[in-house]
Amino acid sequence: MLIVVALGGNALLQRGEPLEAELQHKNVKHTAQALAALARQHELVICHGNGPQVGLLALQNEAYTKVKSYPLDVLDAESQGMIGYLIQQEVGNQLPGRNVVTLLTQIVVDANDPAFQKPTKPIGPVYTEEQAKELAATRGWQIAPDNNHFRRVVPSPQPKEIVELDMIKALLKLDSILICGGGGGIPVERQDNKLIGIEAVIDKDNTAALIAEKLGADALLILTDVPAVSENWGQPNEKKIKHVTPSVLGKMNFPGGSMGPKITASCRFVERNKKLAVIGNLFDVQDMLEGKAGTRVSMEVDAIEYY
Amino acid sequence: MLIVVALGGNALLQRGEPLEAELQHKNVKHTAQALAALARQHELVICHGNGPQVGLLALQNEAYTKVKSYPLDVLDAESQGMIGYLIQQEVGNQLPGRNVVTLLTQIVVDANDPAFQKPTKPIGPVYTEEQAKELAATRGWQIAPDNNHFRRVVPSPQPKEIVELDMIKALLKLDSILICGGGGGIPVERQDNKLIGIEAVIDKDNTAALIAEKLGADALLILTDVPAVSENWGQPNEKKIKHVTPSVLGKMNFPGGSMGPKITASCRFVERNKKLAVIGNLFDVQDMLEGKAGTRVSMEVDAIEYY
Repeated sequence: MLIVVALGGNALLQRGEPLEAELQHKNVKHTAQALAALARQHELVICHGNGPQVGLLALQNEAYTKVKSYPLDVLDAESQGMIGYLIQQEVGNQLPGRNVVTLLTQIVVDANDPAFQKPTKPIGPVYTEEQAKELAATRGWQIAPDNNHFRRVVPSPQPKEIVELDMIKALLKLDSILICGGGGGIPVERQDNKLIGIEAVIDKDNTAALIAEKLGADALLILTDVPAVSENWGQPNEKKIKHVTPSVLGKMNFPGGSMGPKITASCRFVERNKKLAVIGNLFDVQDMLEGKAGTRVSMEVDAIEYY
Repeated sequence: MLIVVALGGNALLQRGEPLEAELQHKNVKHTAQALAALARQHELVICHGNGPQVGLLALQNEAYTKVKSYPLDVLDAESQGMIGYLIQQEVGNQLPGRNVVTLLTQIVVDANDPAFQKPTKPIGPVYTEEQAKELAATRGWQIAPDNNHFRRVVPSPQPKEIVELDMIKALLKLDSILICGGGGGIPVERQDNKLIGIEAVIDKDNTAALIAEKLGADALLILTDVPAVSENWGQPNEKKIKHVTPSVLGKMNFPGGSMGPKITASCRFVERNKKLAVIGNLFDVQDMLEGKAGTRVSMEVDAIEYY
């Protein structure tokens, strides 16, 4: 099978952990073990998020005032280098003799995407309300609530086209394990047949779904730190969903948090390609493929099944 | 012909220009025009330096004190993303329909390389003597003179092995223009068949020469901001070298500055492979190939010829 995985932030950092390099390295080792097990049996393409990391790069840029902060497309590119390197090295260490490569990936977006008017993508650390208000005032950042805290939010347009698609296909044919579309890809717009960077952070689940579609992948695995999608999450009547069609899942309501983009991306991939998407915990990845863990989204179920 | 170019810092920043993103973007457009002309006629692999950029990343890391500075190998990886993206986008804009890709590249070095005891590679901005002394005292940096100023210096071990060599070869066969070995590559050491990052910045001319050798390239072009290698540089009796054998060039003395590594890398490549190396100005690249500009290093000359 050809599998595209979308790695959430927790592949590099557990929720609330500080953004230290050593911690990320340690976490990536565990992530790499889970991914290597998958890569021993399947073709594997790895996409990853960059929310905490690109936020850190932005803060480091702001802190060094002698040089103007670099635009977000360049910081996205830096984050592809940073995160791609850590994953590539550790997955490679788990699989001696296999080629593991990171390809810088530009993703074309529409400069008129409504996302540019309404930033929604949280990046960087969490702030108290007081800190958030000060940052909004002093730096012109957009700030939005995030669980019990606040975070900076930036535009997150829809991915339209993968600039390096041909080379991604070619590298896959060579049996390499490929890291691409990192941080959702570097957002660019097309003007007069030229590419120009644009300030945004594309949602990595949407980008992973687009890559999975364009590669004709058999499965899209969206890996996060919860075991499954739940109805009434955190309530006494919480029900974990085992298997659901995209039409049923797409009509359900998941307020707040980061589950929304995962569900949208899964539903779109399954509806358009009649293949499988699974949302679940990174470390259950084998069980997710076998139907023993996570929430499967496919056409092969009668509406919905619970655990 | 298969050509490997090593782009000096001036491909992105003229000497003394501030490290602003917009300036780098503007400079990369000119660089891309020169490289695109080459790529229309030849197979092209692009290596580039990262001295100013990795220095900036280090300063930004130091300035944001809430998170410990990331190690140099991770910053090298970030710089591959940053610079690779800028070059890839602009070269691609010059050559619609061609594939231009950046592959993250790890380079194995020897952890016992004497360079780790004696840092020599300048990174980041120039400082006055007073600033330099303060930075050495407060940050534990090694500082060394650089022309009339001072700069931070870091270890620069010899590149030994290109981890992603097979994929570089494969991408070249697909007629892509390939950016790899950026910033001299991400330095790693091999321990028990695993790769581990190590804090250093490899010289990009040495890495380009190694890549050229391993790919069997016909020519190594070392592109900088001087028109040629000169005897008695800056003196009334300055003599620009047109063509020279590696054995003659290798015995000449070029005190200070950054010409040393370019000469060492050129001589080694030509001696080992009996091919051509040329050192010259980025914007003379076509004339350099035709023998009309730059300093040619090859076995096909009787000792030395001057302009």
